[in-house]
Amino acid sequence: MPSVRARFYLPEIDADGRGVLASDEAGHLTRVMRLSVGAEIDVFDGRGGMFEARVEAVVRDAVRVRVMGPAPSAAEAAVRVTLVASVLKGDKMDDVVRDAVMMGVAGIQPVVAHRSEVSVAALARGHRLARWRRIAVASVKQCGRAVLPPVHAPLDLQDWLAHRGSDAALVLTEPAAGGGAALRELPRSAGVELIIGPEGGWAAEESAAFAAAGIPAVSVGQRTLRADAAPLVAMAALFEAWDGW
Amino acid sequence: MPSVRARFYLPEIDADGRGVLASDEAGHLTRVMRLSVGAEIDVFDGRGGMFEARVEAVVRDAVRVRVMGPAPSAAEAAVRVTLVASVLKGDKMDDVVRDAVMMGVAGIQPVVAHRSEVSVAALARGHRLARWRRIAVASVKQCGRAVLPPVHAPLDLQDWLAHRGSDAALVLTEPAAGGGAALRELPRSAGVELIIGPEGGWAAEESAAFAAAGIPAVSVGQRTLRADAAPLVAMAALFEAWDGW
Repeated sequence: MPSVRARFYLPEIDADGRGVLASDEAGHLTRVMRLSVGAEIDVFDGRGGMFEARVEAVVRDAVRVRVMGPAPSAAEAAVRVTLVASVLKGDKMDDVVRDAVMMGVAGIQPVVAHRSEVSVAALARGHRLARWRRIAVASVKQCGRAVLPPVHAPLDLQDWLAHRGSDAALVLTEPAAGGGAALRELPRSAGVELIIGPEGGWAAEESAAFAAAGIPAVSVGQRTLRADAAPLVAMAALFEAWDGW
Repeated sequence: MPSVRARFYLPEIDADGRGVLASDEAGHLTRVMRLSVGAEIDVFDGRGGMFEARVEAVVRDAVRVRVMGPAPSAAEAAVRVTLVASVLKGDKMDDVVRDAVMMGVAGIQPVVAHRSEVSVAALARGHRLARWRRIAVASVKQCGRAVLPPVHAPLDLQDWLAHRGSDAALVLTEPAAGGGAALRELPRSAGVELIIGPEGGWAAEESAAFAAAGIPAVSVGQRTLRADAAPLVAMAALFEAWDGW
């Protein structure tokens, strides 16, 4: 494996190529990586720009860097997948966010489904959105992307359904629940909202709502997937079926 | 989700349809599930048989059951994948075994690669193989399969390569290491040995050995996958590419 420079998220870069790391990132640079003035790093702006940079100044917790030139980054996926992910129990949603970002998701919309066992209000009290966004930044660094996909504020599933646009959507169903079409049977689209259920699957009224909204049901394979593994498996199958890697 | 009866592994069933659960399984039935005489369960023999059964007798830790008739199980994959999985750090191999079984793997061959940071002898001292086999049983129960895929004793990668048969094989490589062919570009085969590397990827001499053995390199996508997620992603892509679910 070729060695890679440590990567830091720097959304704002001045016209003269300078920027100041946010405190999380600065702490990571100075305390975790133990880097200081003169260190060569990579910075990414979260919108597709990846750059070689040099640490110009470290004053207490403030780290100023200077961009030197472009650096390579991992290509984005050819199919734009927005993961509409039912919130799972405990910390399992953390893994879903981490894995979806690694796979190349374009955005994540957490939704509270009937069997999610949590409310939108409880998620807000637990500052879960801020946590998921930090996890997304960490995963972007690990997988080499220069695009930071947005993690949107959680919504109740029915609210999301009532207000969603006209983008193509697919809902994953379990084989035990009767299954759905195979991905290869569906027409490829440039962008898709991929809706994935919680532990225990969809309630009957949710399945009915998807059908009423004209959203096709799909299945991947014939074994029962763990809820936290389903997004990773479904995205891999979708990218392969649609040549969207 | 339709409710399912608790599933227990019962490899030996007498000609008259009776069997005695092994101690792990018996403990799970009596202490974890708190079931006793008369309870209706499912048992699977690990070779494709899934049956409805009834608990006939519980004497201390011994549980005798009687098979009543056939029960549904999840179908096996159409492509026979043997996962040749490099042992990962810490407990991450546990997740690889769990996920591969859920996906429908036909067998797992753990191998110690150059960057595995563990030896075959250390794995034996740690009783890791017995642990992986217990995890495989648990995952079979969760995903609904009636086939228990074997987890073979760990080997050094070079020993495995020197003694492997003539089955088709593929080796997963990272995009950062130059990448490989896309799965869709390769001819479908009914069975394949899918070789996946450790954290840090393959050493140069390992890549050379695969090339010398005529084993094609494949990649899935352009982002760097975590080593513990790579088997799941590669199997999903392979099943989708080859219609092997």
